[in-house]
Amino acid sequence: MLYLVGLGLSDETDITVKGLEVVKKASRVYLEAYTSILLVDQSVLEAYYGRSIMVADREMVESNSDEILRDAANVDVAFLVVGDPFGATTHTDLVLRARELGIPTRTIPNASIMSAIGATGLQLYNFGQTVSMVFFLEGWKPASFYDRIKENRDIGLHTLILLDIKVKEQSLDNMARGRKIYEPPRYMTVGTCARQMLEIEEEKGQGVYGPDSLAVGAARVGGKTEKFVAGTLKELCEADDLLGPPLHSMVLLGRRTHELEHEYVREFAVNKETWDKIWQAEYQQK
Amino acid sequence: MLYLVGLGLSDETDITVKGLEVVKKASRVYLEAYTSILLVDQSVLEAYYGRSIMVADREMVESNSDEILRDAANVDVAFLVVGDPFGATTHTDLVLRARELGIPTRTIPNASIMSAIGATGLQLYNFGQTVSMVFFLEGWKPASFYDRIKENRDIGLHTLILLDIKVKEQSLDNMARGRKIYEPPRYMTVGTCARQMLEIEEEKGQGVYGPDSLAVGAARVGGKTEKFVAGTLKELCEADDLLGPPLHSMVLLGRRTHELEHEYVREFAVNKETWDKIWQAEYQQK
Repeated sequence: MLYLVGLGLSDETDITVKGLEVVKKASRVYLEAYTSILLVDQSVLEAYYGRSIMVADREMVESNSDEILRDAANVDVAFLVVGDPFGATTHTDLVLRARELGIPTRTIPNASIMSAIGATGLQLYNFGQTVSMVFFLEGWKPASFYDRIKENRDIGLHTLILLDIKVKEQSLDNMARGRKIYEPPRYMTVGTCARQMLEIEEEKGQGVYGPDSLAVGAARVGGKTEKFVAGTLKELCEADDLLGPPLHSMVLLGRRTHELEHEYVREFAVNKETWDKIWQAEYQQK
Repeated sequence: MLYLVGLGLSDETDITVKGLEVVKKASRVYLEAYTSILLVDQSVLEAYYGRSIMVADREMVESNSDEILRDAANVDVAFLVVGDPFGATTHTDLVLRARELGIPTRTIPNASIMSAIGATGLQLYNFGQTVSMVFFLEGWKPASFYDRIKENRDIGLHTLILLDIKVKEQSLDNMARGRKIYEPPRYMTVGTCARQMLEIEEEKGQGVYGPDSLAVGAARVGGKTEKFVAGTLKELCEADDLLGPPLHSMVLLGRRTHELEHEYVREFAVNKETWDKIWQAEYQQK
């Protein structure tokens, strides 16, 4: 059996009891470690599980999945995924390959950022489609998020924005020379996201949002040091110190809001006065 | 401290290790038992936790929350919620009350149907806003879901539809006579949901969807007997036997689809031939 086991969002104790039982009994344990991370190291997981873990990087999962699935018709293989196995990053391709090979699969769900973001106090019913924000490069500024945010905003919905992480990336130079030397991991902050959003709005000029649009920055959701900071996009450009270390994500508010959301979120506002003023003028009962 | 602890979706072992530690140590343990249910009884939870649990019904949470929060500035109180505490049903009001009383709160996230539905193979990025479907009564057929599904469909997005549950409801007669006699619990099935949807489409006639629109019925997501059935709305009207016991939920597909979603979901089709034909004509690369 192939088990896809969600690890939740924060540390080694966010695994479910059911998931932990699977990990303890499985013949082999893999950790998907390129689309998200926990806030603790692999060694902490290994000590907690009492098992050694093989890290499955993108290359392994995408090009060498048969190694992960080896003999899984006869023995149990656990494939661990931060968050939920079918959350922000889906592992449908791995399951499809297992199906082809006649290997039964089972999923152990867990918290995903796509639902845990409800801890901001914004109601999940009021969210439209989720978008991703990648690190811009000189001359490469993917902006498909802009049209999708527009679709959400046009019907008054909030948008969850998931922020890029770069793990095990090579520099162009090292890649060109075929040297398997990897850069230190990078995690996008809310500040970078807000700045990139404003840059694209500046460029496209459709007024989908602006410096005074309200948003909530979220850091380490579900963890002990979970932190939310609410403010205008302009304010959030400078809020990284308040938010602290990764992982970050962000919600851009839509106009279709509930008074309870206001009451809950304003507690996190950088500046409650500004927040209330803009809320009343632009969001309340719109 | 008030702890809001997500229980996940299925049975007593879906709690996280972190959540279980909280439950074992808390001075009092409440279970929110009116907006969703686990697939196991309270007695199973109590035996597993080694704790007795107080069931918090709607009346208690909405009108008597100070009893739940009693002395929580000094002792730990665990408030257990099926799924995630800020998922389909948010408990912002309880947390706001705790804030007023100066009681610190902490959330232990878990799987919510709002992300676990990704196990259908449909990508969460392609979902718009979530809607609810309530049991229709003679002369009372709330149809706000229709406009919201239209908004999602207009931009090509999938819609997750959460289905009504009726727990601890009184009959009109018993209510009128003030008799606290409760009807047996009722859980809406995918079949009922599909029929109600078609009834409203018939009435409104805006062509938001129709009998041939593709959808996926989901039963007991995350549980051992998890089951998905894909088909047209017409087919899903008759698929309750295939799906089996509650809880059910449903996804109405949008046109903005990925080929991997097709490959994954068609495995669940009542009739693969019909599914493929409609997919190719109406959904593929639209």
